[in-house]
Amino acid sequence: MNTSIALSNLKPSYIREILAATTTQKVISFAGGLPATESFPLELMQPAFTKVAEYSSLFQYGPTQGYAPLLELLQGYFNLKQTTEILMTNGSQQALDLLVRAYVNPGDVIVIEAPSYLGAIQVFRLAGAEIKEVTLCADGPDLKQLEHLFRDPKVRFYYAIPDFQNPSGLCYSLAKRKAVAKLCKQFDVTLIEDAPYHQLRFRGDELALLSSFCPEQSFVLHSFSKIACPGMRLGCVVAPKSLLAPLRQIKQVADLQQNTPLQYVLWDLLKNPSYSAHLQQLKSIYREKHDRMYDALQRELGRLIEVKPVKGGMFLWLEMNESVAVSATDFAGKAMECGVAIVPGDVFYQGGVNNKFSMRLNFSHPSLEEIDDGVHRISKLFKQLVI
Amino acid sequence: MNTSIALSNLKPSYIREILAATTTQKVISFAGGLPATESFPLELMQPAFTKVAEYSSLFQYGPTQGYAPLLELLQGYFNLKQTTEILMTNGSQQALDLLVRAYVNPGDVIVIEAPSYLGAIQVFRLAGAEIKEVTLCADGPDLKQLEHLFRDPKVRFYYAIPDFQNPSGLCYSLAKRKAVAKLCKQFDVTLIEDAPYHQLRFRGDELALLSSFCPEQSFVLHSFSKIACPGMRLGCVVAPKSLLAPLRQIKQVADLQQNTPLQYVLWDLLKNPSYSAHLQQLKSIYREKHDRMYDALQRELGRLIEVKPVKGGMFLWLEMNESVAVSATDFAGKAMECGVAIVPGDVFYQGGVNNKFSMRLNFSHPSLEEIDDGVHRISKLFKQLVI
Repeated sequence: MNTSIALSNLKPSYIREILAATTTQKVISFAGGLPATESFPLELMQPAFTKVAEYSSLFQYGPTQGYAPLLELLQGYFNLKQTTEILMTNGSQQALDLLVRAYVNPGDVIVIEAPSYLGAIQVFRLAGAEIKEVTLCADGPDLKQLEHLFRDPKVRFYYAIPDFQNPSGLCYSLAKRKAVAKLCKQFDVTLIEDAPYHQLRFRGDELALLSSFCPEQSFVLHSFSKIACPGMRLGCVVAPKSLLAPLRQIKQVADLQQNTPLQYVLWDLLKNPSYSAHLQQLKSIYREKHDRMYDALQRELGRLIEVKPVKGGMFLWLEMNESVAVSATDFAGKAMECGVAIVPGDVFYQGGVNNKFSMRLNFSHPSLEEIDDGVHRISKLFKQLVI
Repeated sequence: MNTSIALSNLKPSYIREILAATTTQKVISFAGGLPATESFPLELMQPAFTKVAEYSSLFQYGPTQGYAPLLELLQGYFNLKQTTEILMTNGSQQALDLLVRAYVNPGDVIVIEAPSYLGAIQVFRLAGAEIKEVTLCADGPDLKQLEHLFRDPKVRFYYAIPDFQNPSGLCYSLAKRKAVAKLCKQFDVTLIEDAPYHQLRFRGDELALLSSFCPEQSFVLHSFSKIACPGMRLGCVVAPKSLLAPLRQIKQVADLQQNTPLQYVLWDLLKNPSYSAHLQQLKSIYREKHDRMYDALQRELGRLIEVKPVKGGMFLWLEMNESVAVSATDFAGKAMECGVAIVPGDVFYQGGVNNKFSMRLNFSHPSLEEIDDGVHRISKLFKQLVI
């Protein structure tokens, strides 16, 4: 049977395939976007799991919007205005999918960062959207390019990950946040701020969300995968009421509602007085792993590579200063043979090609020992392949 | 901001609105499709909930297809062949949505029963499908009509609920199952068998799934909402491997995967030796409630109405033999004023109109006392409004 036209827009996900490979063989993985398993607040969640089956109403059908006590708590947690609402979703990935189904017609233009999150690119492709890229500089997007792109009236959304971007690790400066918001207002472009790493800053001062400078025309996607755990598949989308209502309609048709027992567990976790200590501990784990990987790369490869330290999130972005005998994709294949999984940078570009030899390295999931070992292995390979 | 063309195909869900109303005020609800809260196997699930937080791997990202031990168990539970696969979904509602996104283009024709499940109709509308209806007789669809409809080469799917259909409560005979499968094969129409009530038979012998007579061209949607509890949002879709693969691709883009902790809980529940006793108890609860509602309707309204007893599921379908001064929709409004929520039959027809005064009554959720009280109230109202 022929599949739908929508489906034919998709390309197989290189990352999911790599993830599948890494679970079946003994491989050090710098490839996935996996948080540290040892950081999951399982002890803090234990009381809620023990109690949840006492409340039969949590196991009945519930409202599409989400579990009311959790929604109320999150209103305060995210410091939201009364005019703003929350919809609970199956991870923030679903929030993006609902958003696009509610607002995007085939041929509509969505502007994204280059490079950008592959899972978002797939959602946009599935919707038949036309994707245009803006170059990402060290402090955010190239504003001239962005303004030029926004002049196209077919642009509906600007999709951005301003904090510790996946895959580049980059963080928008405050000035760039304000400037981008100004452009969104000027050209009536709606912002999708994907903020899974916003609370994962382990150095420096927190910056205001980009959306806080243009709240009336912004959707914010929050994930609990990175600050609690991904296996619970809980995320949410925050937007002005009128913007959010169509997403709720789609959610109702798509799967009625998010499960309630795990929303109850998350609610109980977030109101636990020890939750903030968990967050601090999580960040110190990530800081240590980041430093370990960054230092190892400097030690092993030094001036052969260009890699900037990051102040949060889960990724380092590596570029080569020298010519390499193979493409980044072929390098990833050879690295896998050496027992290390990495993702070549090219897959994070809409066209599938970067003009530089680049790769994304995840530091949150591997252990400190695996970081040392893995960096050593790919460094050896690098040195063999430098022309 | 303008919403998408897809969204504009939707109509607001009357049932969800009624459900919302019934949770905020003291109303006897015969309106929802809610299973009996008192039947939830909470005690049987308690051990798994207590243990789940000990297994950190359940809280990490997992495979899109589902939790491997659960998939293996279900392979036996549903007695599946090696060529058939399972995909875990956020309720069987999501399975339907994924299916349609994977295979249906706007303008494709889907044949459904008249009346049919509103949640399915909404999924088909959202996809921009053209919906055609086949009349449902006491033993299944009108075969002549079905054959006539299937002659249209634009027909991609036949969507059927052969066991204790929502909303009519009807059950296909074995002969009709075979005849429909034969037509599907003859005209190369793919079957979607929605089977949430298949295991909820409380009288008579189980009949083979319709899809068992045309397995190569069938999707089967299974729900754990009715045999365990709906709040966990767990369902699955079963199909030949090649047919299922595109759904997995869409699931990956839409929300990556189903949560793992609740899949673990379901796995633990289904392998509990007391699970079959739970199922027996559930069915005896439903048999008792069904009999109570059927008897009350006969006692109060007798020959004024036409209502057939059912042998499973959660619904009775009521039609009036006499003329009534108001429409079924207006009647539902008046019933709500009398403290009883019901759903007028018209909403289950694609065009929104039935040629008879009809309504769907849910007997699984209200208590025995509520059934007596609620039937008495609507009967009084009926008698006032009979012309």
